[in-house]
Amino acid sequence: MVSKSGVTIVGAFFSPFVNRVQIAFNLKSVEYEYIEETLASKSDVLLKSNPIHKRVPVLIHNDKTICESIVILQYIDEVWTDNGYSILPSDPYDRAVARFWAAFVDDKMVPMLKELIVSAEEEKVAIKERIGEGLVVLEEAFTKCSEGKAYFGGDNIGYIDIALGSCWEFIKATEKISGLDLVDEAKIPKLVAWAARFQSNDAVKNVLPDIGRFVEVLERIRARAKAFPNRSWPYLPAE
Amino acid sequence: MVSKSGVTIVGAFFSPFVNRVQIAFNLKSVEYEYIEETLASKSDVLLKSNPIHKRVPVLIHNDKTICESIVILQYIDEVWTDNGYSILPSDPYDRAVARFWAAFVDDKMVPMLKELIVSAEEEKVAIKERIGEGLVVLEEAFTKCSEGKAYFGGDNIGYIDIALGSCWEFIKATEKISGLDLVDEAKIPKLVAWAARFQSNDAVKNVLPDIGRFVEVLERIRARAKAFPNRSWPYLPAE
Repeated sequence: MVSKSGVTIVGAFFSPFVNRVQIAFNLKSVEYEYIEETLASKSDVLLKSNPIHKRVPVLIHNDKTICESIVILQYIDEVWTDNGYSILPSDPYDRAVARFWAAFVDDKMVPMLKELIVSAEEEKVAIKERIGEGLVVLEEAFTKCSEGKAYFGGDNIGYIDIALGSCWEFIKATEKISGLDLVDEAKIPKLVAWAARFQSNDAVKNVLPDIGRFVEVLERIRARAKAFPNRSWPYLPAE
Repeated sequence: MVSKSGVTIVGAFFSPFVNRVQIAFNLKSVEYEYIEETLASKSDVLLKSNPIHKRVPVLIHNDKTICESIVILQYIDEVWTDNGYSILPSDPYDRAVARFWAAFVDDKMVPMLKELIVSAEEEKVAIKERIGEGLVVLEEAFTKCSEGKAYFGGDNIGYIDIALGSCWEFIKATEKISGLDLVDEAKIPKLVAWAARFQSNDAVKNVLPDIGRFVEVLERIRARAKAFPNRSWPYLPAE
């Protein structure tokens, strides 16, 4: 549990929420230890460090544990200030806008992706439409927030970039597993260009999961959802 | 839209999320204008100021609009610092703990309450059990966070107090409408005492809804849920 900088991430390679934390530490130039979880048999470290939700990511910083990716991102931004890189903007209104859109990603977009992966054939088109509408809303948000610059956060990757950008591979993997085109470049050209920029950024590119392995994970989740429909995502047995 | 302090809340009297914002301004000694929404026919002010979610609360501060209660609480804490009252703690770890538990209230407890209100008879007991387990988890969180003091936030009402305390009348109204006892004082004695303390605090007591009127609102929601099961909470038509 001890790492060079006293920082350990308990994660899973395919989790966008774990990737958020890794990207944040890369932006802050902070080294971290990484423990890969096998979600089908959760480790004692995970169960002990996140007894409430029993899910990744968990950040272990010295003797403290911090859970929930959005909470961790803000913790990282408040604790590691040495290299001058800010994830959240400094202005309170801009911070509120950033928190609003990050919550939109987590509360609206992510549940729709999960729904599409496990949905019955006849429901898929309607869910795809709703995801498309959500992406158009995010295209408009990008136009407003970026003010013509490269990222939601301006010239550099910020809070919304991490929250949404971490999920872009999830969107692409969901496209593959559902056989549906979710990203319509004609409707969201700026967002598509932004996603390419984000994914090739030095702080990001080595963090993102291999799409093939990501799809394999989603296939396993889908199979479990069919076998155990009364469980909730990711359809593993309760501990 | 103009108020003495340039602050307007668009709200609904029964909404715990609106009450959060009112309590925060009371703690900060900031006067605000209040516009009561009729959710069945949403006003142009609401639709224009919160086009994404079309729901209360909305904070209008000068020419800016801020949506989502948790986002608004943090905005208020960052903007109004004059009277020295802090809603969030200053230490980054304590802030992370506060954000974690506020998210637990919104992501775990509130959905269970909504579920219980509209659930079929045969599902009720199982949902009640899960709510009871959540409250026991919160009792333990109170013991840790309060360290023997009056509130989660210590001697004064803080972020978790507002997030959970605003929902206590919702819990009590859900008890009445479901005919089930959700609050077992033998299991959560500290939380029951804390809730009484919170609700009688000067910043809180005049904000909370009349329980009878709250129950009436929940009865209307339950009736709509029966008539239109494919809609989502609060089972009003889409705009």
